[in-house]
Amino acid sequence: MPRYALKIEYQGAPFAGWQRQKDQPSVQGAVEDALTRLEPGPHTIAAAGRTDAGVHALGQVAHCDLTKDWDPFRLSEALNYHLKPAPVAIVAVAQVDDDWHARFSAIERQYLFRILQRRAPATHDKGQVWRIGHRLDAEAMQTAANVLLGRHDFTTFRSSICQAASPVKTLDELRIERVDGFSGPEIHFHVRARSFLHNQVRSFVGTLERVGAGAWTPEDVRDALEARDRAACGPVCPPEGLYLARVGYPETVFG
Amino acid sequence: MPRYALKIEYQGAPFAGWQRQKDQPSVQGAVEDALTRLEPGPHTIAAAGRTDAGVHALGQVAHCDLTKDWDPFRLSEALNYHLKPAPVAIVAVAQVDDDWHARFSAIERQYLFRILQRRAPATHDKGQVWRIGHRLDAEAMQTAANVLLGRHDFTTFRSSICQAASPVKTLDELRIERVDGFSGPEIHFHVRARSFLHNQVRSFVGTLERVGAGAWTPEDVRDALEARDRAACGPVCPPEGLYLARVGYPETVFG
Repeated sequence: MPRYALKIEYQGAPFAGWQRQKDQPSVQGAVEDALTRLEPGPHTIAAAGRTDAGVHALGQVAHCDLTKDWDPFRLSEALNYHLKPAPVAIVAVAQVDDDWHARFSAIERQYLFRILQRRAPATHDKGQVWRIGHRLDAEAMQTAANVLLGRHDFTTFRSSICQAASPVKTLDELRIERVDGFSGPEIHFHVRARSFLHNQVRSFVGTLERVGAGAWTPEDVRDALEARDRAACGPVCPPEGLYLARVGYPETVFG
Repeated sequence: MPRYALKIEYQGAPFAGWQRQKDQPSVQGAVEDALTRLEPGPHTIAAAGRTDAGVHALGQVAHCDLTKDWDPFRLSEALNYHLKPAPVAIVAVAQVDDDWHARFSAIERQYLFRILQRRAPATHDKGQVWRIGHRLDAEAMQTAANVLLGRHDFTTFRSSICQAASPVKTLDELRIERVDGFSGPEIHFHVRARSFLHNQVRSFVGTLERVGAGAWTPEDVRDALEARDRAACGPVCPPEGLYLARVGYPETVFG
């Protein structure tokens, strides 16, 4: 059975998250249902990152096994046809080796978090940004973000329901960028690591927002990290601004 | 009664258009209803451009008369509070003279049309772009667009239900730009004139798309313009990519 890697883009709002659930719409369920329209199922696909409810993806990666030899372009076209009208799109397909695994072969995950900086509610980007009306000091946030870089025990920034074996992770990038967005000025957080704890990015962004607002200092963030205590974390930010942007593998998958 | 100018942003998808209608949601109706929550109505507001169903705005302008003296910022906050959860936002408010009129004082309208150039369906920008899978030659489209600049009888590019007294208009700008969008490469049309005929921008873009695809030449567009015949127009493009971007007045209104 040939194995295919799927690069998947989606809006998180209509879904209870990536993972298939009974009686609730999920992205995994939508893609598996589309696969069933092509070849009898059941299909069970594995993804690089199990995004939470409301979290989006620009480049989620999953794999599936099919019986027929599909031309990758035709497979993406057929899946997109059956995915309609859900806001889920297969943006690339590649045939991969039988032992390639979307989750276990991945060596890096990159997330994007978007803050829209304006007073008026979002309209065009509704549900796709965290709108913040007060001013944020991006430089102070970057100074505090730098405290988090490298290998640490991230217990403070980990949801209490996180199932990872260890709270020790290595954060490779946490870069804050001002961007001229379609509906106003945005602040983007680019966050990259081999893997993440549950709610880690949203715990980072929620805590760094407090720094940007002037309520916390970068030293407070260091203290919170060193406390290794979930109670020391700032508020966890809402999911709407979060995107799984890219998954890295040892070799180029999608050409 | 003090008069206020409102700068309004909205998503067009949930509305039957700007204009208030019986039994159908409209942007005008949403804003008038929000005004009624502040001061007893009925309120009737006039807008610079009556956008069609599905057409968006970044900078629609309307005016209203109120009995109380409102601080402009507080008025925008109060209206935004009452507009929720509709994807309509008051992004600026200014007090204006009693004889200032959002429509009749306007000396310029600027529209933006967004094409998303990719094969996969849009997800994050669903309903906010015209997605086109085949390649478009932006240079050929610009050459053809230049034919339309200046003062012409635009009968070819005017809907049959257009109520304008004359089909003669002056097109001041039709600039085509390649943009690196959030979900892929985009082509933006920047279209500017004192005023427009009904469906003029969508008739332009639909016709120019044919040039970009190689089906029409710039000379075909000249022939179509000179035919002064609605039947000579290319296909009218869908409304999803169209935004009323800006309305110009002789003096700065919103500071």
